[in-house]
Amino acid sequence: MRDEAKALDAADELAPFRERFHLPEGIVYLDGNSLGALPKQTKKRLNSVICEEWGEGLIRSWNEADWIDLPQRVGAKIAPLIGAKPEEVIACDSTSVNLFKLIAAALAMRPGRRTILSEPGNFPTDLYMIQGLEAQGLARQKLVSYQELEAAIDDDTALLLLTHIHYKTGRMHDMARLTKAAHEKGALVLWDLSHSVGAVPLELDAKNVDFAVGCGYKYLCGGPGAPAFAYVAQRHLDAPQGFRDGVNGQQGAFSQPLSGWFGHAAPFAFDDSYEPAPGIDRLLAGTPPILGLSALEAGVDLIADIGVERLWQKSHRMSEFLRSCLAQLGCDLELVSPADPSLRGSQLSFQHEEAFAICQALIARGIIGDFRAPDILRLGFAPAYLTFADIARTAEELSDILSTRAFDRLEFRQRRAVT
Amino acid sequence: MRDEAKALDAADELAPFRERFHLPEGIVYLDGNSLGALPKQTKKRLNSVICEEWGEGLIRSWNEADWIDLPQRVGAKIAPLIGAKPEEVIACDSTSVNLFKLIAAALAMRPGRRTILSEPGNFPTDLYMIQGLEAQGLARQKLVSYQELEAAIDDDTALLLLTHIHYKTGRMHDMARLTKAAHEKGALVLWDLSHSVGAVPLELDAKNVDFAVGCGYKYLCGGPGAPAFAYVAQRHLDAPQGFRDGVNGQQGAFSQPLSGWFGHAAPFAFDDSYEPAPGIDRLLAGTPPILGLSALEAGVDLIADIGVERLWQKSHRMSEFLRSCLAQLGCDLELVSPADPSLRGSQLSFQHEEAFAICQALIARGIIGDFRAPDILRLGFAPAYLTFADIARTAEELSDILSTRAFDRLEFRQRRAVT
Repeated sequence: MRDEAKALDAADELAPFRERFHLPEGIVYLDGNSLGALPKQTKKRLNSVICEEWGEGLIRSWNEADWIDLPQRVGAKIAPLIGAKPEEVIACDSTSVNLFKLIAAALAMRPGRRTILSEPGNFPTDLYMIQGLEAQGLARQKLVSYQELEAAIDDDTALLLLTHIHYKTGRMHDMARLTKAAHEKGALVLWDLSHSVGAVPLELDAKNVDFAVGCGYKYLCGGPGAPAFAYVAQRHLDAPQGFRDGVNGQQGAFSQPLSGWFGHAAPFAFDDSYEPAPGIDRLLAGTPPILGLSALEAGVDLIADIGVERLWQKSHRMSEFLRSCLAQLGCDLELVSPADPSLRGSQLSFQHEEAFAICQALIARGIIGDFRAPDILRLGFAPAYLTFADIARTAEELSDILSTRAFDRLEFRQRRAVT
Repeated sequence: MRDEAKALDAADELAPFRERFHLPEGIVYLDGNSLGALPKQTKKRLNSVICEEWGEGLIRSWNEADWIDLPQRVGAKIAPLIGAKPEEVIACDSTSVNLFKLIAAALAMRPGRRTILSEPGNFPTDLYMIQGLEAQGLARQKLVSYQELEAAIDDDTALLLLTHIHYKTGRMHDMARLTKAAHEKGALVLWDLSHSVGAVPLELDAKNVDFAVGCGYKYLCGGPGAPAFAYVAQRHLDAPQGFRDGVNGQQGAFSQPLSGWFGHAAPFAFDDSYEPAPGIDRLLAGTPPILGLSALEAGVDLIADIGVERLWQKSHRMSEFLRSCLAQLGCDLELVSPADPSLRGSQLSFQHEEAFAICQALIARGIIGDFRAPDILRLGFAPAYLTFADIARTAEELSDILSTRAFDRLEFRQRRAVT
């Protein structure tokens, strides 16, 4: 198993990229799908943004260091990772806030319809944002199981909102099929790509997607609480504008209610009336967070350098290698992720009633995975900086913890983690 | 004039604090009300957050480095600067996004009412956020002039939304009087403190304010696009909860529609149903921006160390000294800020048809002020790092530019700044 790992690492064309990350000594990090590791380049970039651009340039850096274009520039760099055109993507706010904008936009574009369709167990913030619009009296949340989604789309459905890869199980939706099904009933689709972007190849344009959002701090390595991104298909951005179209009861043009000054057609004219900027810029609300966006740009640059297709292939090899190591060790944890690697994201999730304590016992041995309530042990593969030796070590420790019931120790059962 | 400046600097008890900022050589920075200067401590703090907390700690830092409490901790440190209790303030999102939350909250708390009252020429994003809710069909914007505000509050007014200190003129509203007037008509008040916080003493609790927002990147020196903050009076946070109260047509409890997972009572239970967190935490939406919040904390720490009362007093001395220098030099620029320093914020604004070119000519001489369309030259005083010698130099250069018509040079007329 160790020899096999050695051979796999020797043959791994992505192995040299590990050097481009800052990684703590002795740790196997299987939580890059929660917070991606720190690219070394990010340290340099942030130091320059802080000391030179902010410290020396001060207010002048909005122009001279191109801060003003950072949301668009980072968005344009994310675009090829998700199969989008540069002018369809912008980096801003959090995933949650971007979800709100796009759910509201969909409701305004489908004025006769109120239903936002999703599934139970979707990532909570996706559902909570629907519920926020429901509390405003503007939306009606409908949740049906995975299998019933297609049949549940009806002529009251304004939007189908799903997370492409499930945060807990890693199960991947069929984006093309569900998007087509929604469109056939006149509904729009919004895909949450938080567990997909930078991990699996995506083709938003080719699959005729309407909207998407995604997280900057997982596989994109943008740093803790990094800005998120939003995608709007060009055909919606091109539709004739008119901020109140939705309210006037027509099939409205694209608009969103968090209409802050940075989304204005001329923010520095300081006009009393909101006039949405042309194109994707109208997704912006407040002043863009320059530190966060700069870190995100460095992360995206590195992931783009490595290439999503190669990351995805290595991720398959890694997760299958872990499964094979566990099998060799006679460790039969119950896999809740799809067994077919093409149907899951870059993670393996196991169900165990002691998942929390097992996760803590792994952490005590230097292997950082994740617990997801109530009973999921989630191991994420960020192939940009993981080795096959890491995977073999994980299998050995996990197998040992389970066979010796090391997780029974009181300290592992009592400690409660928040993330 | 130079001698007078020297004497004032020698007597200035805040002079030693200048050393705690990174300031570019040879520059007089009169735009700290647009982007505050970089505290030296911020460089150290961010370096530690990046290399140690993110790089070494990775996901563990949510607990071990207390990232999870950062929005509340920074909020609690801002609280004494605005006369609030620590549990009434939270740092999150942008000013724009926080405005949306609180305008929506006010509408939900006053279900029979639709009017959001403000004044023309308020900072644009404040008005645009009202217009965003108007486009959702939930609000009606009413704008009346400064003098007519009190009389215009009626029984359809859900909220009076004003910027305490006007971004362009520096004119300060009477917070106590207008808050009282709104309450007498059953309306709530939301004060935008972007040009007040860290510059002038504030007493939100004592003045019975309902809501406030403010900017982190101006006088608080939180860095470009820093997170903003929001204040909600304890009495509203204590009101019996119930997320849909507003919709049910009762005088609703406090709730806001950007109900993301970090505002949930138990975010890591991953429940399908949103349950607002008790207290100010329910203002949170997405995952907090750790880099931005860390920089903001360092800035707030420094401003709190210096003390708002002392900053405010030095600001008076500085702006009055500039006026006196300009008068001595025979320079009679038209002041649009109130002549009484107790009625204005920490700035002086002058009206001139060539304001843009004058501002450019000043910048070319190393004096960074600000232009606000169409015809305002805005000079901001951040007394934490400005000297009286800076003020004397500004007066001399400004007087020279005006008397020699240096601003007529083509380069100053053509260049267009964005901020």
